[in-house]
Amino acid sequence: MKDTKFKGIIAYPITPFYANEKVDIILYKKLLERLVVSGSHVVAPLGSTGVMPYLNDEEKLAITTATVEQVKGRVPILAGVSNLTTERTIFHAKEAEKAGVDAVMIIPMSYWKLSDDEIVKHYDAVAKEISIPIMAYNNPATAGIDMSPKLLKRLLEIPNITMIKESTGDVQRMHYLKKELGDDVAFYNGSNPLALSAFAAGATGWCTAAPNLIPELNLDLYEAVQKNDLKEAQKIFYKQINLLKFIVEKGLPRAIKAGLNLQGIEGGQLRKPLQSLEKEEINQLQAILNALQ
Amino acid sequence: MKDTKFKGIIAYPITPFYANEKVDIILYKKLLERLVVSGSHVVAPLGSTGVMPYLNDEEKLAITTATVEQVKGRVPILAGVSNLTTERTIFHAKEAEKAGVDAVMIIPMSYWKLSDDEIVKHYDAVAKEISIPIMAYNNPATAGIDMSPKLLKRLLEIPNITMIKESTGDVQRMHYLKKELGDDVAFYNGSNPLALSAFAAGATGWCTAAPNLIPELNLDLYEAVQKNDLKEAQKIFYKQINLLKFIVEKGLPRAIKAGLNLQGIEGGQLRKPLQSLEKEEINQLQAILNALQ
Amino acid sequence: MKDTKFKGIIAYPITPFYANEKVDIILYKKLLERLVVSGSHVVAPLGSTGVMPYLNDEEKLAITTATVEQVKGRVPILAGVSNLTTERTIFHAKEAEKAGVDAVMIIPMSYWKLSDDEIVKHYDAVAKEISIPIMAYNNPATAGIDMSPKLLKRLLEIPNITMIKESTGDVQRMHYLKKELGDDVAFYNGSNPLALSAFAAGATGWCTAAPNLIPELNLDLYEAVQKNDLKEAQKIFYKQINLLKFIVEKGLPRAIKAGLNLQGIEGGQLRKPLQSLEKEEINQLQAILNALQ
Amino acid sequence: MKDTKFKGIIAYPITPFYANEKVDIILYKKLLERLVVSGSHVVAPLGSTGVMPYLNDEEKLAITTATVEQVKGRVPILAGVSNLTTERTIFHAKEAEKAGVDAVMIIPMSYWKLSDDEIVKHYDAVAKEISIPIMAYNNPATAGIDMSPKLLKRLLEIPNITMIKESTGDVQRMHYLKKELGDDVAFYNGSNPLALSAFAAGATGWCTAAPNLIPELNLDLYEAVQKNDLKEAQKIFYKQINLLKFIVEKGLPRAIKAGLNLQGIEGGQLRKPLQSLEKEEINQLQAILNALQ
Repeated sequence: MKDTKFKGIIAYPITPFYANEKVDIILYKKLLERLVVSGSHVVAPLGSTGVMPYLNDEEKLAITTATVEQVKGRVPILAGVSNLTTERTIFHAKEAEKAGVDAVMIIPMSYWKLSDDEIVKHYDAVAKEISIPIMAYNNPATAGIDMSPKLLKRLLEIPNITMIKESTGDVQRMHYLKKELGDDVAFYNGSNPLALSAFAAGATGWCTAAPNLIPELNLDLYEAVQKNDLKEAQKIFYKQINLLKFIVEKGLPRAIKAGLNLQGIEGGQLRKPLQSLEKEEINQLQAILNALQ
Repeated sequence: MKDTKFKGIIAYPITPFYANEKVDIILYKKLLERLVVSGSHVVAPLGSTGVMPYLNDEEKLAITTATVEQVKGRVPILAGVSNLTTERTIFHAKEAEKAGVDAVMIIPMSYWKLSDDEIVKHYDAVAKEISIPIMAYNNPATAGIDMSPKLLKRLLEIPNITMIKESTGDVQRMHYLKKELGDDVAFYNGSNPLALSAFAAGATGWCTAAPNLIPELNLDLYEAVQKNDLKEAQKIFYKQINLLKFIVEKGLPRAIKAGLNLQGIEGGQLRKPLQSLEKEEINQLQAILNALQ
Repeated sequence: MKDTKFKGIIAYPITPFYANEKVDIILYKKLLERLVVSGSHVVAPLGSTGVMPYLNDEEKLAITTATVEQVKGRVPILAGVSNLTTERTIFHAKEAEKAGVDAVMIIPMSYWKLSDDEIVKHYDAVAKEISIPIMAYNNPATAGIDMSPKLLKRLLEIPNITMIKESTGDVQRMHYLKKELGDDVAFYNGSNPLALSAFAAGATGWCTAAPNLIPELNLDLYEAVQKNDLKEAQKIFYKQINLLKFIVEKGLPRAIKAGLNLQGIEGGQLRKPLQSLEKEEINQLQAILNALQ
Repeated sequence: MKDTKFKGIIAYPITPFYANEKVDIILYKKLLERLVVSGSHVVAPLGSTGVMPYLNDEEKLAITTATVEQVKGRVPILAGVSNLTTERTIFHAKEAEKAGVDAVMIIPMSYWKLSDDEIVKHYDAVAKEISIPIMAYNNPATAGIDMSPKLLKRLLEIPNITMIKESTGDVQRMHYLKKELGDDVAFYNGSNPLALSAFAAGATGWCTAAPNLIPELNLDLYEAVQKNDLKEAQKIFYKQINLLKFIVEKGLPRAIKAGLNLQGIEGGQLRKPLQSLEKEEINQLQAILNALQ
């Protein structure tokens, strides 16, 4: 299982809501379809972009099912199944496998800081219950816990943990993974403004919500790297950097929804306490999108 | 409502589990009773100590109900009702009021960082739905968001937010609150190792899990401060500081459970991914408890 | 030598300059005299406040000599002798002893981060060359290196290191020192906004530039603590806190000079790159001083 | 002057000392010669590597003079002239220009944190007194002050500030500079482990002490980038990354001296408080050097 097939642009859909804050599955499918047809190599429902932690169990299952139905095998599906408790994480991982996703993504959500041993046991308990690959995901900014490179290395000893997603925004973490683990494992960049550095460092893929707004630029960056054309990659990266920085600074669900609206696409509502961007922020985003033309 | 009656030692019970990870309500009531009879001025179920975020809705309601039944009005009850979504926070705040608690504690849990406006709207939406006082709680280490003193000041304009709990561990936050807000508002210390500094700075109370293990020392510190006896307060504080530091460093639920066991009291099991302390850590705790005799 | 006599308010004079940036020794003596007659228990030339690192060797010697001449034994003198190199630190420590100061203060200035062993050897090399006591001084914000409590404990094994000045602004460092070292050693607070917490924690003295502006309030705080009157200490502390915060935020040399001018006292010029406070900052300071009346 | 000619590998010599801690100019010239003949594009005496802050005025002048004599115009010279005071910085900048160096490097050394205005005035005062280009250098880890991208942009309005050296280790600073300033200005990477990311981001050169030990690998990385061969650059970078990390972690003067010794080259002594690496650290370095063969 260590030779997982994911590479390239792994696109994260948002989860849209109706005005009454119920999940809008119909709109979700439309937005997901856009990601598939615009060329993303993998789609990743129930990530941070998809506000997974704000959904209840039924809503998560509905999103997973809808994703499988809509994608119809055209691209692989990587589903988020993280939860504060080990029991609920296992529950969602099993449901996702049953629904037909290709791999699951797990971040060690924390309220109480977890020890390295607790994290290993958590992943191990989940891994034993499923037979699809796991992407271990490190993102201290959202999850409140920072997995050291050494811990990530330990996690990779668990058979079906085949991928590492690094979102600390520190390219030296990737250098360490690459140097220590060689070609045995694939690492993925989850920090949008680090896209160029990460590919230069050898990242196998880029986990990003940006394809909701600028799929061509995201794909072109990957292609330039594949063609070993650094100058071209640099040029394409600098074209999109302001958008990448904006969506990270404002929070992906808020920024993607605003960007969709500016592009004339329905993006649904947010679930509270998340609120839409302010008018001034939307104007900034409009200026950034205009500059891309 | 701004003249809330809470002061002194606000004690946080743990939530014990059976080996199968179900909540053990019978044991919970016994542990809660210990806090009441040993003299705590207020009890606070469903705090971080009570692993509230790891419980589902039914379990939270069961704990709240059990608390009201057991306390029988002997001391006030401050119940945690925080949730990632505004809708669920309102739900639990209303249920807690209906069950008969005296006040609710709300921390702005975050996955996506919230703007100040989002936080104010979140609190405001909850406050409108209940008529009991709210303690706003700032603890970036567990909740992932740090409310500035300025934001806390804004929150205090909401009528039933009458109390502020500060757990950043930075006494200068308390200085600011005291200096800016004067005697209009009560602030509470949630950082155990800061107990002496916080009382010196004018804290109205101390929110702590320590009374599960050393209620007399906690109460004695408060009494010494009430008697304006700094030298005595200092002496009592230094007696307990190593325990206070230990329980914070190891995580309150883990450390309190271990301490109860060392004192010959049943503390139940933890819910995974939280694991019991290691043997070496338990030995450290034993040494600290021995030194208190 | 471990029973050093320093306690109470240790006052730091500024080093004033002429418009041509030469040191103004005449004005220095006048400003120093104000500290002595207003009741400071110790004076400390060539501290951060005295911009010691911006002075050349001759200027430092001139300040030391002027201090001894002016003080004439009325209060003890604690002279700063820190330098990036061990050789220059020894040179200044010996000169200070020869000039007649009572103790020297040494901060491990760093450009290249020093290892614990390098710091111990540095202090040890200096300590061997003098026979007056040394105050080891920890202030990462100015010196770029943070000595852990464990390292401070190691330093105290050097015979003439008898005092520790802690300026990290973290009261828990003081708790550790007090708990670990008991009554064997004196620790001093160098963080102005922490004055109350530090005295509550058992600090022997307060190293501060504030007596240049508000000597009575500084002394009154110390007296209230000596009388074990916490309520009074708290009241006096909150009276001066805004000034304490201001002078730290703006940089002591700049803020003290501005404050002296507002009080109608000549404060001399600063040495570049340090510049006088902006008009708006001076207005803030005026408002803070007015509120003290 | 904005079209400065520096690009490629800018090599930093160490400053060796005799056992009595005097500067060893003869050995300095030998070590400098190695950098020139092994192909470095520029040499940079009196940098952090050259322990400039630990030298007195005479020693700095001697190093500058020795550099000009030894290099004899074969490569450009970039001399460090930073000082805590503006007056001494001007002094050394003028002396360096007089001695015949091609450009000066200035970091805003700080004891008291400087405001943005103070920093601009500092640079401006120096710039007015010389007619050679200035490289503004940002390195919070050694200098204690972090110049924001916005401040760096302001500095570039000063006519002879033509180059920016960024050593924060945050590639996003470089993205900002590149995006904001376009091709008007050259930026240089001063963080060794970031060498690949920085070149990918468009850095004009790499300021590094590594050519003292591995000049071919450093030059090969630059050449691969020039040839737009990302795959080759990545391969060469990962070959040297462990050495780059080691020399940064241990401190450049200590690590370069130890590495020279391991390669059978005399590296002189360090000036105290800096001490030689411990035996275990030297063994680590040996292992890293062995792995390069």
